[in-house]
Amino acid sequence: MTRAQLSSQTVTRIPSDQLYLDDLHVGQRFTSGSHRIDEAQIKAFAFQFDPQPFHTDKQAAERTFFKGLAASGWHTAAITMRLNVESGPQLAGGIVGAGGELSWPAPTRPGDVLHVESEVVKVTPSRSRPDRGTIVLLSRTINQRGDVVQIQKARLVVSRRVAA
Amino acid sequence: MTRAQLSSQTVTRIPSDQLYLDDLHVGQRFTSGSHRIDEAQIKAFAFQFDPQPFHTDKQAAERTFFKGLAASGWHTAAITMRLNVESGPQLAGGIVGAGGELSWPAPTRPGDVLHVESEVVKVTPSRSRPDRGTIVLLSRTINQRGDVVQIQKARLVVSRRVAA
Repeated sequence: MTRAQLSSQTVTRIPSDQLYLDDLHVGQRFTSGSHRIDEAQIKAFAFQFDPQPFHTDKQAAERTFFKGLAASGWHTAAITMRLNVESGPQLAGGIVGAGGELSWPAPTRPGDVLHVESEVVKVTPSRSRPDRGTIVLLSRTINQRGDVVQIQKARLVVSRRVAA
Repeated sequence: MTRAQLSSQTVTRIPSDQLYLDDLHVGQRFTSGSHRIDEAQIKAFAFQFDPQPFHTDKQAAERTFFKGLAASGWHTAAITMRLNVESGPQLAGGIVGAGGELSWPAPTRPGDVLHVESEVVKVTPSRSRPDRGTIVLLSRTINQRGDVVQIQKARLVVSRRVAA
């Protein structure tokens, strides 16, 4: 049974699994699939975007703040995005970020298997634009030991259902 | 003349252009080199980390929120990191981010030439760790038209000079 059939609001709605602002509520949760990161991925990303020894050189990394090879935080953020795009909230119009907050409480290491647990923490219809609104999505990126490697509060632009 | 020769604090210091927490002050500014982003780079990043039509398909992108192909915000963030690592503040121990705030006031488009203007907005020695502290670095990523495409307030861990 589709979302449209479950709803009594309208029969003109196109059946779809895509989520509009109107379908979202505070407390709604999503769990992504997982991604295994390895040393080659960590180095490839780092050579392109964050060429620092703790991300590119296993031996040199031992003598740094990280005490071993660690993924660039931007790599963890990019993997988090990929997981949310593929298996997080399927928002109508896609996942469009306006900004947010980000922290990396623990490093991502070679061999880590990451998944993302997300929760809607705010839903705000636009006052000026009846076709859209914003949500705040809190996403925690978690490794196979249960360590949280990234906490993100993302402000996303989300479409509203518009009457046919 | 090196920084060490200019300083009267100590003669045991290793001459270096690297900046320690002790060398940083609020208002200190840094301007990076520049990077030109093209359609191929935008699509390559997006296919790997943010596979949504407005980042991967020029034609489909016309009909989206972005009204044309735009780089993933995470791609803009990654380029910003690269520019800061290569030609931003040369911090002793590297640029180690603990987290921060991020916003994308305008999209990054194919052909944009980006550079980063950064300013130290806070310097905080650690109370418990005499060998380190944190700074907040405000980085604006700006295109060739002067549009700010990313504003980032990054909380960075910075080493202190330790007496020999």
